[in-house]
Amino acid sequence: MFRPIAAPLALRHERVLEHLERERLDAAVVHDASNLRWLTGFRGSTGLAIVRPHGVTLVVDGRYGDQARADVAGLADHGVGVEVVEIRTGVERLDRLALATLGTRRVGFEAERLSVAEHQRWSERIPGDLVPVNGIFEQARRIKDEGEISAIAEACRLADLALAEVVPLLVQRVTECDLRDELEHRMRRLGAQGPSYPTIVASGPVHASRPHHQPTRQIIDEGHTLVIDVGALVDGYHSDMTRTFIVGAPTPLQTEVYEVVAAAQRAGLAAVGCGVPVAELDAACRRVVEASGFGPWFAHGASHGVGLDIHEQPFSTPSTRHGDDTFLCGDVVTVEPGVYRGDLGGVRIEDLVVLTADGPRVLTTSPKDTPCLPSPPTI
Amino acid sequence: MFRPIAAPLALRHERVLEHLERERLDAAVVHDASNLRWLTGFRGSTGLAIVRPHGVTLVVDGRYGDQARADVAGLADHGVGVEVVEIRTGVERLDRLALATLGTRRVGFEAERLSVAEHQRWSERIPGDLVPVNGIFEQARRIKDEGEISAIAEACRLADLALAEVVPLLVQRVTECDLRDELEHRMRRLGAQGPSYPTIVASGPVHASRPHHQPTRQIIDEGHTLVIDVGALVDGYHSDMTRTFIVGAPTPLQTEVYEVVAAAQRAGLAAVGCGVPVAELDAACRRVVEASGFGPWFAHGASHGVGLDIHEQPFSTPSTRHGDDTFLCGDVVTVEPGVYRGDLGGVRIEDLVVLTADGPRVLTTSPKDTPCLPSPPTI
Repeated sequence: MFRPIAAPLALRHERVLEHLERERLDAAVVHDASNLRWLTGFRGSTGLAIVRPHGVTLVVDGRYGDQARADVAGLADHGVGVEVVEIRTGVERLDRLALATLGTRRVGFEAERLSVAEHQRWSERIPGDLVPVNGIFEQARRIKDEGEISAIAEACRLADLALAEVVPLLVQRVTECDLRDELEHRMRRLGAQGPSYPTIVASGPVHASRPHHQPTRQIIDEGHTLVIDVGALVDGYHSDMTRTFIVGAPTPLQTEVYEVVAAAQRAGLAAVGCGVPVAELDAACRRVVEASGFGPWFAHGASHGVGLDIHEQPFSTPSTRHGDDTFLCGDVVTVEPGVYRGDLGGVRIEDLVVLTADGPRVLTTSPKDTPCLPSPPTI
Repeated sequence: MFRPIAAPLALRHERVLEHLERERLDAAVVHDASNLRWLTGFRGSTGLAIVRPHGVTLVVDGRYGDQARADVAGLADHGVGVEVVEIRTGVERLDRLALATLGTRRVGFEAERLSVAEHQRWSERIPGDLVPVNGIFEQARRIKDEGEISAIAEACRLADLALAEVVPLLVQRVTECDLRDELEHRMRRLGAQGPSYPTIVASGPVHASRPHHQPTRQIIDEGHTLVIDVGALVDGYHSDMTRTFIVGAPTPLQTEVYEVVAAAQRAGLAAVGCGVPVAELDAACRRVVEASGFGPWFAHGASHGVGLDIHEQPFSTPSTRHGDDTFLCGDVVTVEPGVYRGDLGGVRIEDLVVLTADGPRVLTTSPKDTPCLPSPPTI
């Protein structure tokens, strides 16, 4: 059975060193904030880690020196040599990068993250060749350990609680912004660091037909479909969930589409699992939607990974249809089909699941079978 | 006199076309979200615009099609040809990029933003040579127009109001998180889209000595210095302000450092202005701090620009000391010296100013001369 592991920082470091050895790299430079946090524990927004077999050099600016030393204590406690270097200027940063890569011949870098201009500046200072290592952190980060799953599960729980508190407000006349504000405030009161991403509250034919609508002062009214996409942030880890409601008596079209999306979502949950091709999740959802004739209005992929980033590996979308990647035990992924059409608004239903050898465990528990809300009072 | 202009979208487009002509470019590809919004009005988080003399092609994924067409209406209304193309996969995205750059020989791209890996994929599909154009958007975005300054001023006003509402709570025993939650909730209630950045509430010697501390459940207590760094987001535009408080009777060191930072901040405000070398703002603040012997603990730059990004051009830091850039009328910049030391905590005072021909206009108005708060009750 898949059992998430403890003491992850030292193990993560080891995994990266193994990769360096396999790829004959003398060092890797990490600067993506999520990769940096995953590898070293550093929580700041900007920094640079040079990983070499004999230890890690973390270069941070003056805002973060003290915090960085506290953050990397976990790594140092496990016997990894970590040096924190504080710099004041961009020139000093490059000087430190040059110093920490002395004597290297091949140095890995994050090709999907590093800008062309910064790559140019690094090339001029690093003695070794810069070699793309993209994917190693993103792949390694997929398999969540015990602490990571706890944080994500807690984030899901807080979003569930906040949504349960807020749904009753819909008997009053409220705006999209009101609901967004209440959801985010309540998640924080409950203990979240904040929302996992800008909460989506989208109601009515125009707004709900936009999968990533930004809330407005529009009043949520009778006849609207109402899409609420909400997650919490806990200890740097995200959650992600969507529920759709129908305000007042549903039209036949609203009922039909809701049932189609709900069936697609069940098909997705039934399809996902360790060892299953990643493409199969999107395909399973899409088959149901297409069989009902709503295929052209399912305008996004059915799944993405969630962790330190709100969108991370693996992605199950029409793009990945021809890939050979499979789901891993420890993947935390969304299952989120949706249908969006101007005459209807939109319906999306999204859960977050962690894959285990015993099957997927659904972390988001808000009800999905009672989408119809009473009409708000007229003025 | 500097007068901000109206009808900016068409003018922005024209400015970019002039740049293309000057640099003998047949097209520019824009993908940074803030540059994209500035140029086209598109508010989504991901997209791609190909700008050519005969018009703009905006490529967005299925989540954003409908919204993108609404967002770019302002540009189309001013006679610029805009085509919105909706794609479903990464391959389709590259196909559209190839199609929209047919017949080009030189194509500008954002070298400080585009990743090495994506640059590689583009190179294989775009017929023309990819030429760095970094800086043109960032430089052009510095000069804020009327609408932009209104949005930023409103964001400042909302943060001022929220802070004024929250400071009285400090007579109770509250935590850093409590204050952060109240500030962000109140900014939204007042009309902000959200906080401009994760609000910093840092109290006591350890936390306040970290310029970018993340709030915790620590109770704000007698003897603490308390740094609150808060801004609002209005129509995509940011504000930025810091105030420092001393809880209970101040120690001589707290009083001394507060006065030094306040004097440095006044020196910064007196130094900044259209035509002044950008480096001079940091230098003016730093001279005051260094003359008082606290120079080693002024651990960050004194100023950055603020607009669609919370940190944007121009930057006045020790790094820019040898540059020859000057402030422009229309620049919106922070003035924010600080001193951080383990035995003290930290003091930072930050205002946001817009530079006009009549001198800098300070947009943040929260009081700076009454930092001492009564002690909270003991339990």
